Amino acid sequence: MTEEILAVYERLSFCFETRKFADLRILLLDMEPADIAHYLENSLEEKEQLMFFRLLPKELASDVFVEIDSDLQERLIKAFTDNELKQVIDDMFLDDTVDIIEEMPANVVKRILKNSTPEDRKQINELLEYPEDSAGSIMTTEYISFSPSTTIESAFDKIRRTGVNKETIYTCYVVDRKKRLVGAVSVKDMLLAEKNSIIADVMDANAVVANTLDDKEQVALMFSKYDKLALPVIDKEGCLVGIITVDDAVDVIQEEATEDMQKIAAVLPNEKPYLKQSIFSIWKARAPWLILLLITSTFTSIILSNYESKLNSVLYAFVPMLMGTAGNAGGQTSVTIIRAIAVGDVEFKDIFKVILKEMLVAVALGLTIGVICFGKIMLIDSLYDKIAITEAVVISVVCAISLIMAKLVGCVLPLLAKKIKLDPAVVASPLMTTIVDALALIIYCTIAIAII
Amino acid sequence: MTEEILAVYERLSFCFETRKFADLRILLLDMEPADIAHYLENSLEEKEQLMFFRLLPKELASDVFVEIDSDLQERLIKAFTDNELKQVIDDMFLDDTVDIIEEMPANVVKRILKNSTPEDRKQINELLEYPEDSAGSIMTTEYISFSPSTTIESAFDKIRRTGVNKETIYTCYVVDRKKRLVGAVSVKDMLLAEKNSIIADVMDANAVVANTLDDKEQVALMFSKYDKLALPVIDKEGCLVGIITVDDAVDVIQEEATEDMQKIAAVLPNEKPYLKQSIFSIWKARAPWLILLLITSTFTSIILSNYESKLNSVLYAFVPMLMGTAGNAGGQTSVTIIRAIAVGDVEFKDIFKVILKEMLVAVALGLTIGVICFGKIMLIDSLYDKIAITEAVVISVVCAISLIMAKLVGCVLPLLAKKIKLDPAVVASPLMTTIVDALALIIYCTIAIAII
Repeated sequence: MTEEILAVYERLSFCFETRKFADLRILLLDMEPADIAHYLENSLEEKEQLMFFRLLPKELASDVFVEIDSDLQERLIKAFTDNELKQVIDDMFLDDTVDIIEEMPANVVKRILKNSTPEDRKQINELLEYPEDSAGSIMTTEYISFSPSTTIESAFDKIRRTGVNKETIYTCYVVDRKKRLVGAVSVKDMLLAEKNSIIADVMDANAVVANTLDDKEQVALMFSKYDKLALPVIDKEGCLVGIITVDDAVDVIQEEATEDMQKIAAVLPNEKPYLKQSIFSIWKARAPWLILLLITSTFTSIILSNYESKLNSVLYAFVPMLMGTAGNAGGQTSVTIIRAIAVGDVEFKDIFKVILKEMLVAVALGLTIGVICFGKIMLIDSLYDKIAITEAVVISVVCAISLIMAKLVGCVLPLLAKKIKLDPAVVASPLMTTIVDALALIIYCTIAIAII
Repeated sequence: MTEEILAVYERLSFCFETRKFADLRILLLDMEPADIAHYLENSLEEKEQLMFFRLLPKELASDVFVEIDSDLQERLIKAFTDNELKQVIDDMFLDDTVDIIEEMPANVVKRILKNSTPEDRKQINELLEYPEDSAGSIMTTEYISFSPSTTIESAFDKIRRTGVNKETIYTCYVVDRKKRLVGAVSVKDMLLAEKNSIIADVMDANAVVANTLDDKEQVALMFSKYDKLALPVIDKEGCLVGIITVDDAVDVIQEEATEDMQKIAAVLPNEKPYLKQSIFSIWKARAPWLILLLITSTFTSIILSNYESKLNSVLYAFVPMLMGTAGNAGGQTSVTIIRAIAVGDVEFKDIFKVILKEMLVAVALGLTIGVICFGKIMLIDSLYDKIAITEAVVISVVCAISLIMAKLVGCVLPLLAKKIKLDPAVVASPLMTTIVDALALIIYCTIAIAII
């Protein structure tokens, strides 16, 4: 929050409290919808929120509404008259309406649909049918299309006539009589073309397209790869059914990164901003993995119990260090590979390249860490405990071996998960630690007992 | 990689090998620059790459060049004639030229600057002076600006005349005689306005702006918050000095997310795609944290050694479980808070809200995990080892307490790091585990000895 915006918020509060509503509206007209939404959510009491929303200039109401969080949206909708609701929905883009509907309880959804135009209702219902993570679920049907024989001049007329209600006018699409996509044309190319040339002359006939059922994360990556402002979405027949704009792709990229980090940290995905999450929903997102990892830790306890009588106390004291190093080493690799898969740098077909690379790195790191571990034991740890050289050698060697083994598990697991269409981030991270911990312990105990 | 693109790649290879260069060019004209760059990098031998690049249609050469990786860029530049280099640079946007220059050795930089126009050279040098992570470092100076009194018609004339070489034409900027930014105007608003109205009538006088020295991550977040296609960048005097376009913001968002994940996983940031990183650079990025964490694990060894004679073997066997649970619980919180800070959901001023929330969640989770832990010990662990009820109670209680303590550390550390302008992701994650491990052990040993 910049100081500038905080100053504007103060002026808003002053106008609102002193009922200077004309001044309030002038202030609001100069503000970004996202900033107004933030004010509405955080600076007003529940009772004041509806009143404040009603004071919004008409042209801003919908833009602000899509920016506020779903709890407040629900409360506002319940308080709206049918007329108010109609107005807000009419001015919203269909993809935003669909996003809101997906968060609302059934009775609110019914009211929203009742107050939409029949044409919008039909399209909303179609959009709602696409699977949750598909391109179809984030597209909008409000785009501009031309036939290939349209002249540039009449194309601009169409933009002027219908552009106000379209999510973007900067990329328009070209379709044949059967609505099949035949090209894309940018307003830039249209502006730079002769007025009497036709769309077919300036369009890009090989536009990058997404399919309705493509994973939305893959589609978002296409934006960062090809630097587009919008992508057309086609169905199985090649017909244009919608477009996705870059602002929605940005949201997907942010959400997917957040989700992957949550999964890596053993938290179930939760889309709401942190401060809006309830204690219960945070508990629900965190308890399952903690419980699962607690249960699986039984393995390490069993292993330690079994070898209990055979490991001396010196060797015992190094168990946390060994498991920690293996866990850290495995985590470095698994997170690197999970991210590389997510941004499209690595695919399953690269598995042997990846394994080779990780094993070379692992051997180099194993040597490094093994030597440093030996040095540390002889120089530091031997200060407070009597440690034999054989023991130091065994610990260092096991440390190096566990590290290599952890890196192998760390690179193979996410790639296998991807191959069998599981989420690499879920499978690979917390689970990996358990596997790596257990393996490291077994290696340690076996080698230690064999040698000492 | 979709099958469609792989099919195009095969046709490319066929044309290239059979020297059907006319056909090759036709194929290339229909392709996206990013796809051509990928082919050039991965499907051709070193010797063929230069030849292939020379075959590219002129209008594509620069677009492809900016998409290829810096090693290949360097090799190509070294092989280019001065004329070829001039051509490629001339057609590139200045922010891309600056990005390339930042990766090149001094002698290549010299050649690039020598082959730029004097005007470009001046601007490149200015852009190079902005700090690495600043808005100035990712902006371009190629934008369209009008004076407020320009008519819509002459504004469109200017776009037609100069738009080809601008990074975006869809948002234009309005400046006064001293080059101070007074507004922004979208081509959409211009298209929908009367031809003889003036820019001042349709512009947005309260455009969202970035400052040259703003953190580029913060600026990228403004794109996702305000859904803009471009943002103007102003200097301390309020003069317009450049613009940032959404495609660059998308890159920053992706890079920052990757960087945060790397830091969380105890890897030093590395910008190159995984498969392009050398074994040595991966080793260099991973070894320092592994070594540091190995050294700090001395604490846990010391603690365990100290209590060695006092802990019985049953209590010993549960050390990995306790440390694991504390580490997982702390990681859940620290990663959640790190991400919330990164996307702007949480600031330092929220610290008490965050601590309160985390402590409530921690108590709920502590109770859950404590109970389950007790159940697990009595039902599962007691199958293979004799465990007294007192021992089970102590272990479960310590498990719950360490979990709560880990969550406190996990939420306070990243916020404090943010406050003292350190990177939350670096400070909070691997370091946290060490602190949490040591604390959990101390709590365990103290309580266990006091009671048993």
